Amino acid sequence: MLIERSCEFIAQLVNGQLIGKSAQMISGVSSLQNAKATDAAFWRNTGAGSDMYYQQIIPSKAGVVLVPMKFDLPVQEGRAWIKCVNPSLSFAKVTAMFKESMSYTPGIAKSACIEESAEIGKDVHIGENVVIGKRVKIGANTAILPGVVLGEDVCIGEKCILYPHVVIRDQCIVGNHVIIHPGVVIGGDGFGYEDSPEGYQKIPQVGIVQIDDDVEIGSNTTIDRARFGRTWIQKCTKIDNLVQIGHNVVIGENCFIVSQVGIAGSTTVGNNVVIYGQAGIAGHLIIGDKTTIKAQSGVTKNVPAESELFGSPAKSRDDYCKDQMYIKKIPSIVKEIEELKKLSLFSLLTEELKLRLLSELKIKK
Amino acid sequence: MLIERSCEFIAQLVNGQLIGKSAQMISGVSSLQNAKATDAAFWRNTGAGSDMYYQQIIPSKAGVVLVPMKFDLPVQEGRAWIKCVNPSLSFAKVTAMFKESMSYTPGIAKSACIEESAEIGKDVHIGENVVIGKRVKIGANTAILPGVVLGEDVCIGEKCILYPHVVIRDQCIVGNHVIIHPGVVIGGDGFGYEDSPEGYQKIPQVGIVQIDDDVEIGSNTTIDRARFGRTWIQKCTKIDNLVQIGHNVVIGENCFIVSQVGIAGSTTVGNNVVIYGQAGIAGHLIIGDKTTIKAQSGVTKNVPAESELFGSPAKSRDDYCKDQMYIKKIPSIVKEIEELKKLSLFSLLTEELKLRLLSELKIKK
Amino acid sequence: MLIERSCEFIAQLVNGQLIGKSAQMISGVSSLQNAKATDAAFWRNTGAGSDMYYQQIIPSKAGVVLVPMKFDLPVQEGRAWIKCVNPSLSFAKVTAMFKESMSYTPGIAKSACIEESAEIGKDVHIGENVVIGKRVKIGANTAILPGVVLGEDVCIGEKCILYPHVVIRDQCIVGNHVIIHPGVVIGGDGFGYEDSPEGYQKIPQVGIVQIDDDVEIGSNTTIDRARFGRTWIQKCTKIDNLVQIGHNVVIGENCFIVSQVGIAGSTTVGNNVVIYGQAGIAGHLIIGDKTTIKAQSGVTKNVPAESELFGSPAKSRDDYCKDQMYIKKIPSIVKEIEELKKLSLFSLLTEELKLRLLSELKIKK
Repeated sequence: MLIERSCEFIAQLVNGQLIGKSAQMISGVSSLQNAKATDAAFWRNTGAGSDMYYQQIIPSKAGVVLVPMKFDLPVQEGRAWIKCVNPSLSFAKVTAMFKESMSYTPGIAKSACIEESAEIGKDVHIGENVVIGKRVKIGANTAILPGVVLGEDVCIGEKCILYPHVVIRDQCIVGNHVIIHPGVVIGGDGFGYEDSPEGYQKIPQVGIVQIDDDVEIGSNTTIDRARFGRTWIQKCTKIDNLVQIGHNVVIGENCFIVSQVGIAGSTTVGNNVVIYGQAGIAGHLIIGDKTTIKAQSGVTKNVPAESELFGSPAKSRDDYCKDQMYIKKIPSIVKEIEELKKLSLFSLLTEELKLRLLSELKIKK
Repeated sequence: MLIERSCEFIAQLVNGQLIGKSAQMISGVSSLQNAKATDAAFWRNTGAGSDMYYQQIIPSKAGVVLVPMKFDLPVQEGRAWIKCVNPSLSFAKVTAMFKESMSYTPGIAKSACIEESAEIGKDVHIGENVVIGKRVKIGANTAILPGVVLGEDVCIGEKCILYPHVVIRDQCIVGNHVIIHPGVVIGGDGFGYEDSPEGYQKIPQVGIVQIDDDVEIGSNTTIDRARFGRTWIQKCTKIDNLVQIGHNVVIGENCFIVSQVGIAGSTTVGNNVVIYGQAGIAGHLIIGDKTTIKAQSGVTKNVPAESELFGSPAKSRDDYCKDQMYIKKIPSIVKEIEELKKLSLFSLLTEELKLRLLSELKIKK
Repeated sequence: MLIERSCEFIAQLVNGQLIGKSAQMISGVSSLQNAKATDAAFWRNTGAGSDMYYQQIIPSKAGVVLVPMKFDLPVQEGRAWIKCVNPSLSFAKVTAMFKESMSYTPGIAKSACIEESAEIGKDVHIGENVVIGKRVKIGANTAILPGVVLGEDVCIGEKCILYPHVVIRDQCIVGNHVIIHPGVVIGGDGFGYEDSPEGYQKIPQVGIVQIDDDVEIGSNTTIDRARFGRTWIQKCTKIDNLVQIGHNVVIGENCFIVSQVGIAGSTTVGNNVVIYGQAGIAGHLIIGDKTTIKAQSGVTKNVPAESELFGSPAKSRDDYCKDQMYIKKIPSIVKEIEELKKLSLFSLLTEELKLRLLSELKIKK
């Protein structure tokens, strides 16, 4: 279902200032390069000014372009600019507005298997082959896409999207406005065993996973249930694909966790922490607020707030840079030693003089 | 369905010694901190004695607490302690006993698609939307949860749990008491190609995967089928989430493989090997029994039994520590060279003396 | 359905030269070690000549063995050799020929949910519980196995195999002869946010993923859709299990990407690039053609064509080896400094002489 909006409407939506006169109706979004006349696009001027303008905006076919406030180049006939404080952010709003027209229609697919005791909220969309266990609760306006499996007593908030084949096991709790991408597994057993003479004995994992409001979780990520209590992802945290989060981990608010990161059991991550791709954090640690952990780092110790960590095992930026610098110094050290050898008076002597000197000096050696 | 057990019953179950008199019926398990009066909990005294007792056990509401044998502090009225050799292990038994009451009821969901030639054992549970191929065999008391797909000729043993969306491709074999978490893929094609002038040519992977008794496999882990013969996970080995196991890999008994580990094709891992998170092992290697491979290590060579490996590329503990120590030494080396320069007699001379000495000494340089 | 082929037929199929007379009919393939009389096997002679022949081929029960051209050892009665230029490659052809008899029968399972507007090609196989969205197009002879979910407007080419539980979200495009293993997610949202004072704001990801002809994608791999435009995997590229490919990544032709690799957003990888296991590539980079990136490397900079990269952060082979060599040199440096100290004339003097000399030399220090 196509929706169309005027340039005025879009300017108002983003609280921006419309420049130029355009009767063009806009029905989608695109990059400057690929835009059609019916598309909105945006320009992130990084300072290069009019050159980039002539290279990128003029040749673009976009009907309307979101530009920064300081942008003052002339608009072409029949097109429009919208000046805004943060064109990228404003553009996200425009995109979301067009996306809304593609949202999921309320209703329950015939092939869905839903236990009678489940409570399904208002205007929920439930797709094909969804399986919903006993006493599950689903909030209003949530979309559960094909093949999702929800165990007994799972509780999902309002306005969530659970993409195909998400699995959430018994008793886990998901807040409002949570987005969970395909193949995510929430509430699998934590990896807990007692080492006994007869081999590893499984420790039952009877806790849950709790996901707070406005969290997003990337495709095929796994979040294990707690031994007791909860594994807990706090509000506004964003998690990328193929991330592993162990049992009893707590992740604070507004964290940003990039693909293939692994966080071992019982570690607590503070608020506003950024963890880049493929980094790992050992178990039972405390990571302070506003810490940044660089890609492929391996964190093995507690970390105070506002740390910046590099390498495996992870070190502070200072220590990491020093190590790198030290290694780089080795060739010059080798050279200096050669120089020293030459400079060593002793090595400069003829064999005859060496012997004479040694005897004269009553060498201790 | 709630079950209740007396404190006496629990003491007997774990072969422990009941201290105190309590009529409290127990119906669940929890941590000391979160326990209700109807819960059992346990206390792992790590030596800190009575202080921790007053901080943790006294304020807890747990009706009964499993404690170590040497524990000798007084029990409160209406509560009970159970002394046992290993409270954590005993507690696992108690938890398992309560869990049993939550196990899957035998029966086959209407939406399950099962080929006629499949042989389904006694008291098997088959969930919604399960797909079972031709000639599949499933042992007694096994639970196959929603959305599992089993290819032709797959053979599953007794008392297994296959969680939602597990995929096991044709001909693969799974033993008894195996637990496979959601999203696991067993028997996908190995990553095998011939490099030819027309590009990579796929090498058909006609072998299988064999999983032996008492293995557990974590969510979204992938285990590839062999080119010929089998990829083989031997009994009692435990594998965490998001692990990759290549074609023709053999993993011995009672291994412990943590999340996001990758093991490349045709490598053989011995018995009782421990591999920590995000470590990688190259292909065609042999890893000796009782080896420990630390997190994020990269193993590139065969390894004798009882090795301990660190770093990427992985080294023995000794070599790894030496390298780290060496790097740390560089600043002191730099200092020493400065000292040496100063000490060098030559550098100590006045320019005039240098020249005189050089000529006197008939310098070779 | 068993198929049988004569040794002559197989020799012709691989354009090889039949040695020996054998009436044995062949109905399968195996390794030399496990072969039955009805199996074909192959021998990759790596130079060790007749010894290996007597150890491997003579004891094997394989009815026919593919051998290299230079192979000239005698054939046993009732068996046959087939000489070929590349026995391993030829063997792949033989295996594929037998596999073909096991391919999927055309038809649509009753439990499949297919929108009316979808266009399904000739001789397509659609398995149980498959969900196909509006306006999806599927080319002839493609097999869609149980539980696959295809979003709206997805387009799949001819002769593809989509294994169980593959998820492809709206609008993504897949070429011909593409193999996608179980649990793969194509077209999940890219990990894109604007950092604002109210926390991370989701940037809508309105682009697609495009997969070209002859690509293969391993189990549980995730490929994110573009912000705009497309994430693009070009023809003949092979991707292993649990790989992460970020939004707007472009991967050239005939690349080889091993398990658990991660490639961050907007990076462009050239043609014929090989990336080994667990390596990571940062975002917005350009990786030149024919580059090789070793296991666990972390690439942080643009890379010219034909580079070879090691370590994290990744370096050229030369720089990497130098660093390793430098570190190894440290103990010898420490020794040399000790020697230098001894050699330093100054240190060799008696205390008395030191004082005399220093005064005579009018030391500056």
